Amino acid sequence: MSHLTLALDAMGGDHGPSITVPAALQALHSHPHLKIQLFGLEQELTPLLDKSLPATLTDRISIHHADDVVSMGDKPSFALRNRRQSSMRLALNAVADGHADACVSAGNTGALMSMAKFVLKTLPGIERPALIAALPTEVGKRVHMLDLGANINCDSETLFQFALMGHVLAQQVEQIERPKIALLNIGEEETKGNDQIKQTAQLLLDSDDIHFVGYIEGRDIFTGNVDVVVCDGFVGNVCLKTCEGLSQFIIKEFKRRFKPKGWLKFLLPFVLPTLSRMLKGMNPDQYNGASLLGLRGIVVKSHGNADLKAFQHAIDEAIVEMERQVPKRIKDQLEAALLDKHC
Amino acid sequence: MSHLTLALDAMGGDHGPSITVPAALQALHSHPHLKIQLFGLEQELTPLLDKSLPATLTDRISIHHADDVVSMGDKPSFALRNRRQSSMRLALNAVADGHADACVSAGNTGALMSMAKFVLKTLPGIERPALIAALPTEVGKRVHMLDLGANINCDSETLFQFALMGHVLAQQVEQIERPKIALLNIGEEETKGNDQIKQTAQLLLDSDDIHFVGYIEGRDIFTGNVDVVVCDGFVGNVCLKTCEGLSQFIIKEFKRRFKPKGWLKFLLPFVLPTLSRMLKGMNPDQYNGASLLGLRGIVVKSHGNADLKAFQHAIDEAIVEMERQVPKRIKDQLEAALLDKHC
Repeated sequence: MSHLTLALDAMGGDHGPSITVPAALQALHSHPHLKIQLFGLEQELTPLLDKSLPATLTDRISIHHADDVVSMGDKPSFALRNRRQSSMRLALNAVADGHADACVSAGNTGALMSMAKFVLKTLPGIERPALIAALPTEVGKRVHMLDLGANINCDSETLFQFALMGHVLAQQVEQIERPKIALLNIGEEETKGNDQIKQTAQLLLDSDDIHFVGYIEGRDIFTGNVDVVVCDGFVGNVCLKTCEGLSQFIIKEFKRRFKPKGWLKFLLPFVLPTLSRMLKGMNPDQYNGASLLGLRGIVVKSHGNADLKAFQHAIDEAIVEMERQVPKRIKDQLEAALLDKHC
Repeated sequence: MSHLTLALDAMGGDHGPSITVPAALQALHSHPHLKIQLFGLEQELTPLLDKSLPATLTDRISIHHADDVVSMGDKPSFALRNRRQSSMRLALNAVADGHADACVSAGNTGALMSMAKFVLKTLPGIERPALIAALPTEVGKRVHMLDLGANINCDSETLFQFALMGHVLAQQVEQIERPKIALLNIGEEETKGNDQIKQTAQLLLDSDDIHFVGYIEGRDIFTGNVDVVVCDGFVGNVCLKTCEGLSQFIIKEFKRRFKPKGWLKFLLPFVLPTLSRMLKGMNPDQYNGASLLGLRGIVVKSHGNADLKAFQHAIDEAIVEMERQVPKRIKDQLEAALLDKHC
């Protein structure tokens, strides 16, 4: 097996190199065919690569100095114009130049999206990349949802492309032959929804490639009955962030209700960690990274506040997408779908 | 104090009269100035009014026979055309004819919405009624959210009207002098959102009546920082149903994780009821009823599966709205806002 090379924005996220470097080393340890390029301030990164590390690891990790860092407060347009020497930008450049196969960053989402689109370009026929992430379900398996905020206004053609990209990702990452694709709507009946949704449903029904199972409502996202949920970026973003908000609320409310209740408060240490772990999955980019699909390269976004384990998950996600050549497969499927349409 | 009269669709909901009649009697017990008209099949309702009840109750409750019932599967258009003698329709007629001050139903939401609009008509300047409900927050107080599914496509004028209606409801029901009104968006920055959202923000900033606090994201709905959250019916519906779905998921996942864990499973009976009670609030029409605002009358929708307590909450909601004359106050505020605009 040939090597896979990952370009890592080592400065991104709230914790920067103190999380990204140990996570990188751990990934090299678990994946013998992986190489990692760390982008960031050399003087910060070098001390973190312990000289006592075995050569089998250090041979596969390299530091690529970047003078600048995209801050969390940078506007996408500002970052695009002014952060050309940042760790994020140089990591993306490495993918564009063919020196790396994927990029992982825990930095500013908007900036990453703009830079990725500018540097890597979208696949032929794709206007803007979409953000996809996986949520947990009642039956254990994950459900992939897109778009989570990259595209506010989506016509039916765009939503159809999201369905196709979600289809490919679920096929490759989850190894499901015919992933069940659903459109998020306000009811399951055919008559429900706005014009874009109805037109998208028709496009999906007409497609031979996609196993379209119809509309689902918000309450069905977590049942595990479907593999991919498609919606526009406004709805997806609000929906996901509401789940995060509700999770926070539940933890706080749970503490509030149990604390004053005499002996019941002694249950809290047994119950809260499980509840917290469960609800972490509701913050998918914290849990396993969110991917930007539709680009001519792989970009995985980890949560700014990701801990070691979460950042490792994001790296793992990038590795799976590299191994399965997700962008190439999306491109092939898009071409096939386009061909179908013209036949 | 003069009497308030409530028209009750006694046949609505999964449990029909076995829930609605006891809830009605309880409401009469708690509210000495309340009168209730029960609409439904006389032969089913009469036996439920125990002859041993005190005259102080039976004097204030009357049965109004309705031959027909709207079924949960009826399409709104079908119900509107064909269920003219249904308990739901006759209860709404009673409000339109001035024989009752409000209507409560646990029946088919779409049918109730269509019939209410047809029978009661909307207030001058309002195109369609909006569905509003209250969610719990981290600080104990409730947050009102609208629209929850009555209006899929909303322009900025409609969203502005929602804000105004939410403002009046929060003022009257929660007794907050200057309710904090927020627009649900995908970010807090001014530049975020689609055109409708940005135009609505401008309308709200220009309004002297409304205390507009800006955009909030999904994760901030439950913080208690705002009193009213405004969004279009598509986003609101998906958002709310996602909360319901997540609540269900949490209960099931919690059971699954604790069951096999030896002695920890003995904690379940102590923890689950609290968790379930907490999460019931995420299903607001089950918890305390959802109101249809913008009509020339008060209509409260209780969840189809509401239990006795939940149906009582819906009646209580209708009583508060009757006492505070919510439709009249919305009409006054709308007229004032219109006057402001033309000055």
